Amino acid sequence: MKYIVPALVVLAIGSAATAAAVLGAETDAVPTNASPIYGVTLPDGYRNWELVAPALEGDPLHELRAVVGNKIAMDAYRIGTLPFPDGTVLVKLAWKRVQSPEFEPASVPGAATTVQVMVKDSTRYESTGGWGFGRFINGKPVDQAQHETCFACHEAQVRGHDYVFTRYAP
Amino acid sequence: MKYIVPALVVLAIGSAATAAAVLGAETDAVPTNASPIYGVTLPDGYRNWELVAPALEGDPLHELRAVVGNKIAMDAYRIGTLPFPDGTVLVKLAWKRVQSPEFEPASVPGAATTVQVMVKDSTRYESTGGWGFGRFINGKPVDQAQHETCFACHEAQVRGHDYVFTRYAP
Repeated sequence: MKYIVPALVVLAIGSAATAAAVLGAETDAVPTNASPIYGVTLPDGYRNWELVAPALEGDPLHELRAVVGNKIAMDAYRIGTLPFPDGTVLVKLAWKRVQSPEFEPASVPGAATTVQVMVKDSTRYESTGGWGFGRFINGKPVDQAQHETCFACHEAQVRGHDYVFTRYAP
Repeated sequence: MKYIVPALVVLAIGSAATAAAVLGAETDAVPTNASPIYGVTLPDGYRNWELVAPALEGDPLHELRAVVGNKIAMDAYRIGTLPFPDGTVLVKLAWKRVQSPEFEPASVPGAATTVQVMVKDSTRYESTGGWGFGRFINGKPVDQAQHETCFACHEAQVRGHDYVFTRYAP
């Protein structure tokens, strides 16, 4: 016996992202995988980008982190270009910090936590120093309230470095 | 008044590496920038390689670290190839861990310390699990005594992962 399943049911039981991708072909709606406020999405292939620097985030998160950058970002870092040019994209990967099971003095990455993105577009993001922000967990953006905190902190702490905390580690 | 400086004097007051590079064109001597025992040198362009994973080294070194790999290494990590194929090169960068001056919970890279290299060549390095090791400070290999400790530790701790501590952080 065969069952014929209406397309609408397939969409309904599929993921919201899949449905949005299908529907998106006919609308201009912001994709559901884009951050609130900024509309920033996870850039393709960022895990293959070059390393800017690692970092350790202490209490209460206890995370190892690594910022990677696209080519525009890396060129700017290495030349020392400030402000960063439009098209710069920085991605911060983060993992829970766990004890190495094999080497007592070392901590290593455990489960991945957040992925955070900064995109430079001085026109689109003029009111936030030229930067759009996105924070993602399991590929999905976190809520608007969290995104409302991004720029205020970057503005308060690192305005003199074009709102970017991370420096290049040579 | 002009001074004419004999070429030999220029070599003598230049760095040993420069002299070796010049002399190397006419000899087969191991370059002075190669590690003892293994003859491993710092690979060209490693700072542009992709990230395998960051790590934290605790007491007494207090370092942030990041392992990067060449294309053969990254392909092997992503596919899960073990043992790593010949031609794999892994480089561990290390920096003193210092308090971020701008964000209280974070530690960031300070001064660079050592750069450590593993090169897979199952023929050349057959007696050490197929791996050659090099540890460098300011571009120069450290002494033989330090290189004598490399394989014993890797063999004791991570023989089951082809003598490699670092896992890929997704």
